[in-house]
Amino acid sequence: MSKKLKTGVIGLGRIGQIHLANLVHHMPDAEVIIASDVSPAAHAFAERLGVPHVTTQAEDVLNHPEVEAVIICSPTPYHVPYTIAAAKQGKHVFCEKPLDVTLESIREAEQVVAENGVKLMLGFNRRFDANFSNIRQLVEAGKIGEPHILRITSRDPAPPPVEYLKVSGGIFLDMSIHDFDMARYMVGSEVTEVFVKGDALIHPEIREFGDIDTAVIVLTFENGTLGVIDNSRKAVYGYDQRLEIFGSKGMAKAENNTADSLIHFDDAGGHSSLPLHFFLERYENAYRVCLRSFIRCILDDKPSPVNAHDGLMATAIGIAAMRSLTEGRPVKISEVVQESAVNEPISEATVKA
Amino acid sequence: MSKKLKTGVIGLGRIGQIHLANLVHHMPDAEVIIASDVSPAAHAFAERLGVPHVTTQAEDVLNHPEVEAVIICSPTPYHVPYTIAAAKQGKHVFCEKPLDVTLESIREAEQVVAENGVKLMLGFNRRFDANFSNIRQLVEAGKIGEPHILRITSRDPAPPPVEYLKVSGGIFLDMSIHDFDMARYMVGSEVTEVFVKGDALIHPEIREFGDIDTAVIVLTFENGTLGVIDNSRKAVYGYDQRLEIFGSKGMAKAENNTADSLIHFDDAGGHSSLPLHFFLERYENAYRVCLRSFIRCILDDKPSPVNAHDGLMATAIGIAAMRSLTEGRPVKISEVVQESAVNEPISEATVKA
Amino acid sequence: MSKKLKTGVIGLGRIGQIHLANLVHHMPDAEVIIASDVSPAAHAFAERLGVPHVTTQAEDVLNHPEVEAVIICSPTPYHVPYTIAAAKQGKHVFCEKPLDVTLESIREAEQVVAENGVKLMLGFNRRFDANFSNIRQLVEAGKIGEPHILRITSRDPAPPPVEYLKVSGGIFLDMSIHDFDMARYMVGSEVTEVFVKGDALIHPEIREFGDIDTAVIVLTFENGTLGVIDNSRKAVYGYDQRLEIFGSKGMAKAENNTADSLIHFDDAGGHSSLPLHFFLERYENAYRVCLRSFIRCILDDKPSPVNAHDGLMATAIGIAAMRSLTEGRPVKISEVVQESAVNEPISEATVKA
Amino acid sequence: MSKKLKTGVIGLGRIGQIHLANLVHHMPDAEVIIASDVSPAAHAFAERLGVPHVTTQAEDVLNHPEVEAVIICSPTPYHVPYTIAAAKQGKHVFCEKPLDVTLESIREAEQVVAENGVKLMLGFNRRFDANFSNIRQLVEAGKIGEPHILRITSRDPAPPPVEYLKVSGGIFLDMSIHDFDMARYMVGSEVTEVFVKGDALIHPEIREFGDIDTAVIVLTFENGTLGVIDNSRKAVYGYDQRLEIFGSKGMAKAENNTADSLIHFDDAGGHSSLPLHFFLERYENAYRVCLRSFIRCILDDKPSPVNAHDGLMATAIGIAAMRSLTEGRPVKISEVVQESAVNEPISEATVKA
Repeated sequence: MSKKLKTGVIGLGRIGQIHLANLVHHMPDAEVIIASDVSPAAHAFAERLGVPHVTTQAEDVLNHPEVEAVIICSPTPYHVPYTIAAAKQGKHVFCEKPLDVTLESIREAEQVVAENGVKLMLGFNRRFDANFSNIRQLVEAGKIGEPHILRITSRDPAPPPVEYLKVSGGIFLDMSIHDFDMARYMVGSEVTEVFVKGDALIHPEIREFGDIDTAVIVLTFENGTLGVIDNSRKAVYGYDQRLEIFGSKGMAKAENNTADSLIHFDDAGGHSSLPLHFFLERYENAYRVCLRSFIRCILDDKPSPVNAHDGLMATAIGIAAMRSLTEGRPVKISEVVQESAVNEPISEATVKA
Repeated sequence: MSKKLKTGVIGLGRIGQIHLANLVHHMPDAEVIIASDVSPAAHAFAERLGVPHVTTQAEDVLNHPEVEAVIICSPTPYHVPYTIAAAKQGKHVFCEKPLDVTLESIREAEQVVAENGVKLMLGFNRRFDANFSNIRQLVEAGKIGEPHILRITSRDPAPPPVEYLKVSGGIFLDMSIHDFDMARYMVGSEVTEVFVKGDALIHPEIREFGDIDTAVIVLTFENGTLGVIDNSRKAVYGYDQRLEIFGSKGMAKAENNTADSLIHFDDAGGHSSLPLHFFLERYENAYRVCLRSFIRCILDDKPSPVNAHDGLMATAIGIAAMRSLTEGRPVKISEVVQESAVNEPISEATVKA
Repeated sequence: MSKKLKTGVIGLGRIGQIHLANLVHHMPDAEVIIASDVSPAAHAFAERLGVPHVTTQAEDVLNHPEVEAVIICSPTPYHVPYTIAAAKQGKHVFCEKPLDVTLESIREAEQVVAENGVKLMLGFNRRFDANFSNIRQLVEAGKIGEPHILRITSRDPAPPPVEYLKVSGGIFLDMSIHDFDMARYMVGSEVTEVFVKGDALIHPEIREFGDIDTAVIVLTFENGTLGVIDNSRKAVYGYDQRLEIFGSKGMAKAENNTADSLIHFDDAGGHSSLPLHFFLERYENAYRVCLRSFIRCILDDKPSPVNAHDGLMATAIGIAAMRSLTEGRPVKISEVVQESAVNEPISEATVKA
Repeated sequence: MSKKLKTGVIGLGRIGQIHLANLVHHMPDAEVIIASDVSPAAHAFAERLGVPHVTTQAEDVLNHPEVEAVIICSPTPYHVPYTIAAAKQGKHVFCEKPLDVTLESIREAEQVVAENGVKLMLGFNRRFDANFSNIRQLVEAGKIGEPHILRITSRDPAPPPVEYLKVSGGIFLDMSIHDFDMARYMVGSEVTEVFVKGDALIHPEIREFGDIDTAVIVLTFENGTLGVIDNSRKAVYGYDQRLEIFGSKGMAKAENNTADSLIHFDDAGGHSSLPLHFFLERYENAYRVCLRSFIRCILDDKPSPVNAHDGLMATAIGIAAMRSLTEGRPVKISEVVQESAVNEPISEATVKA
């Protein structure tokens, strides 16, 4: 293994460009050998960043003899095929979430990755946000004692277009999946049951194709913790990303981040800033810490901080959530995934940045 | 009706003493004619406050010819009998919550009160806390738009003794009932369904008699709002009473109150004060505003701000919550109360202090 | 000494009514024997509170044989004469601030009080506010180490009428005097020098009679601490009462208190409540704790928590501040008061409530 | 003028490396042609960033025919000579602060820059911090009305070594100079007088060479605003950078920034994070916005947002502050700089990022 990890990037859409720029500017331990995308604009972007090879073919990346690790930022249906192709070439894989929307496919990827002895990390970037990773440290250090209640608020500033929503896989796999992963990460225990109440309160027309935009989700964890997530597709005041964990010895919570720390008082009251507008601003640094963790887990030969099992469980909770919504009852995760998976140990703590 | 309301107080336990002292010191529109309790210590307390008649018999209060309004602070089983007796004497009634633990009994009280043309107000004091009543005003003023999500955190600093818990009626009627009333008040719409997950995480031994000490409760409202309450009997950092309401135009939330506004920084971080310890401190002023609202609703002949229907619905939600816990499924409120009740209009906004 | 302190109140203006109501409702260790005022409205107020004797003559209070302690709330010119008269009758004295605007007169009162072996306490109520007394406790406990910098912000919501200002004695003796006392109390060391910059930025017309409405005041303390006070007669957002003390081991600061703990977010930002509007609201409880300290220092025979020397020094700093403003230079306190006073020990910590 | 500004960097110490990395990674409108430093480590740093020419001679930068703008990050004594040399070559200059410690030298640089029609910008980066530039916008928009009081708290986490302090030029030119610039920028009016109280409370030994480590500084502005700065070389809780401006219509203040937005409650209280540790963390983004403003003012041919006059006035206030400390009196700025300078208009508002 070289000291500087040789990487290739597949897919230079919004998230791919973020990862590519971070690799070039912020990852002294890595270099980008090649990047692929079909769009000429994406090519220009990569060239401006000095990427030596830019191609329209993902295969050129997957087959490039020097590439040690592939960063997969293509649309979701390609995640598993590219992961499998890369693994078979002996390349490590960083893959955007979700790994897939079916459990079978995730299982297959997990198996191929294991057979080829490579590492697979999923881009659940929120784990690497300072607010959340610092709370997780407090939990691990026993500062809140036995966890009893987890609360996650996760609301987007504005819904995607209805056309997007139609093919999004539904709110649970498109949006709440981040919160399902966060819940497992934060509590450090597996989710065993989910109950959902939800409705399309913002865009009633999406009920037609079975989707919702507002949800309250109750999670039950193996260790007895109770969790609740509330989701909305539209918070007019911006991106609302808060979390609280309460236990036998205390409580820790994270408020939203803002662009400044000022408050203005006039005769009407105090006025403060909105939360950082959306995920690009809020998780700007989390994306870097996340990618750096991937690079370090390879260079230091440590376990992947977010592995295929994590992807499997997040997707399984999402599938169970949809079933709960449809059937109006709490659904055991073991109804949708083999019992064995629920009993696997949760993946180990995030590699520190 | 005299300008100064003539009152009598039944029951001088902890809450009765609070109301009596507030009547004497803080209610220039009222006077206390008589008070009853069986305990000599309570008599001494009332005499120190200058109450002219102190008796051991509740009947002396109920039958006193000058008394226009009775404040009932006796144990719960006496609430309905005394309310009915007072109403039949043409006296108005302020009664501590819960009015009763059975819906039939509440219905009976409601009917007698209506037949006798007197007013009945229940002591759901939290509605009169500045944090919550100010948020309710924002909701009424349309500042948050259509409500979508309500979140209530309600955690006690320490559980009562197990002996008390055995006869408490269970967490939903003893503790969460405040939150059920708050939920209806804040959203301004009736609760139609409840789903509960809960466990005895603090004192596992209370599972024996079917009680729990930690709960997450999902409420569905007639107007589409989704609500979630989390309860714990033990927050080591004190009395945790927070609320957030989120809607199409914004969000409002109340944090805990503290005894001071200071923060101390040393090389380990910033350090701030604990929340006000328990309900006597936190709701000290709310008790006064609540009682004052009762006095004003009589003197000004306005509707009671918290009437028998409010008591009925809070108890009904509590009964449905227990059924949900036991049966592991969402329970419609209409399963436990006549459909008609769920469709009654919610009582009007609190009389302003 | 009886167990219940027998008191008489002289002067039932705004502040006198506050003290009287607090004595009646909140001081179980005291009773009010007699109160005096010239106004019929004040008499009615006292009678409603059940004061047994109400008179137009202050002398009736001063000479009443049962009165053990006199609460002096008359206009400032009467403070010293009544204090002296009461002391000569062997009565303890609680006197509103300032004790007087001349140092000679304060010295005389101090001497008579000492000769007659009675206690004198001045109503510097802010010392008893939870924010400030809790910070003082941190300082005493060594939590901030050696104090280096003290910052006080003290701004009124609106200036008094110009007619009042003409006879007020000037901003330093009328308004800043509270901050001078707070500074000495908080640092626990004597002020040795003062420098002022100020101007009439709100009402330029008050420059005519030598007054200002906006000031920045630098204090130097005997122990090396540097202090800065900023004053304004008009903060449109309400009563601004903040303090910060910074030292070798840390920093503690108090923000303003508000009537609620809520924040409202809409698409324009976060909106929070104004500070409590003025001193009656902000210091409502401090007035009680202050008076209770007086009662306890007599009943427990402890030193007065705010004695004549404190009054002397606050007034001396005020006189020096005026000289600094006029002469445009830093002024030593020893220029206006005997060197000996500056070297007296500061009065001991406030008796805890 | 090319679309992409061709720059050269002189001096690759700590601050030079920050600017160089920002130019390479964050300034798509600029490119770095050449960089100079005597240290081999600095050369390696520049080469890793892909700088095409790296030299030991500043003159190579100053004389490079393609370089349009020079970034001067050398030690202070070289600031003016390099500025003059660059200006004479027709190159624009970004120079670290202070421009110089003598007013004559600054005047000379100012004149040469003017004669050669190039732009000079000084690196007063704090103006470009979001907290402060957003407050400045509120002031400019009239949201606080006429400014009356400005308060700046500026405390370092730890003092530099005494050996450094000996040659630092004293606290006012080494540390407070940032606050003097901030004060002028924020109020938008010239400082006319300064008064200082200060002492060496942290390291008494620095009194020997006339320096102090703790100061309270009162500023008087031409428009009547009163300002106060407090400085300390050692805040154990980290870098303390706060500001408040109060005026006829309101108040705005900025609190410190922290690395996260979390709070942890246990039975001892609430615990929050320390401020960002020092200037590299706190002003990381401000450095970028500052440099970007320089590039845009050249490419868009706008006035420099921080010009030589700003450097002159900040230094002049520093010199006057030292005189005030030594002589124990308020010192007019016109005592140390020609009257004309005090009456020059303050440089125009910062070019928006």
